[in-house]
Amino acid sequence: MAISEMSDKECREALTRAHIGRLGCALDNQPYVVPISIVYEEDYIYSFSTAGQKVEWMRENPKVCVQTDEISGQSKWLSVVAFGQYQELREPLFEIERAHARKLLDRQHHWWLNALAERQLKVGDALVPPLFFRIRIESLTGLVSAESE
Amino acid sequence: MAISEMSDKECREALTRAHIGRLGCALDNQPYVVPISIVYEEDYIYSFSTAGQKVEWMRENPKVCVQTDEISGQSKWLSVVAFGQYQELREPLFEIERAHARKLLDRQHHWWLNALAERQLKVGDALVPPLFFRIRIESLTGLVSAESE
Repeated sequence: MAISEMSDKECREALTRAHIGRLGCALDNQPYVVPISIVYEEDYIYSFSTAGQKVEWMRENPKVCVQTDEISGQSKWLSVVAFGQYQELREPLFEIERAHARKLLDRQHHWWLNALAERQLKVGDALVPPLFFRIRIESLTGLVSAESE
Repeated sequence: MAISEMSDKECREALTRAHIGRLGCALDNQPYVVPISIVYEEDYIYSFSTAGQKVEWMRENPKVCVQTDEISGQSKWLSVVAFGQYQELREPLFEIERAHARKLLDRQHHWWLNALAERQLKVGDALVPPLFFRIRIESLTGLVSAESE
């Protein structure tokens, strides 16, 4: 078995297939990783959240990454990492982008359940709508095992 | 659906079941996430690697995290994050720990294939043995959706 670097096109194809990614953020050089629902489109990865540690950290430090993988065995896998900048889609500045993110993410079954439930846990208040954000991709790298090709 | 915080015991049980984790490391506040093979035992998560970006970063900044999850649907999942310190199991200082790590990781089928293949890609030299490391866990948090309980 050998491992190859994926082309930019292959990385984007894998992102298109992905519904779940692991978001990496960092504060004071302490990394934090959390699974998120994602939709990839052009140069952006769209997601949503509620108030919480990752949002606080990304507001402080917008340098983030999103990793996604397809692992069907120790010798059959691929992994893509997108490095980029956190952009919170707040109204009114990002009204159009926020509606677009919502539309893209809404296609995923029951996406809103998790967002609302997390909000209830963290804040004890279900009335505030979820927060939408996107990662503007600045670079993409990917590795694939030979058996996956 | 609601989401609950997992107890320390539940987090450790999930780590015991996990074979794959996502390692988060950071340099100059830029996070990086990569999938790794893991074995959890007591206060440590054991893994291996070869030369490469994540090892260079962790040598510079040993503050890391390991995230693992069990996701069977948007309303049925759990996620655990362990924060801790990177320890490279170099000989002769960590000879016993290195042998122990190797023994634990060797139980996973074909674990060495990926390590060697990655090494060949990055360094073009298959003769150097893989590098073993562990994360000394300093804190553990986990969330579980109600349907998973």
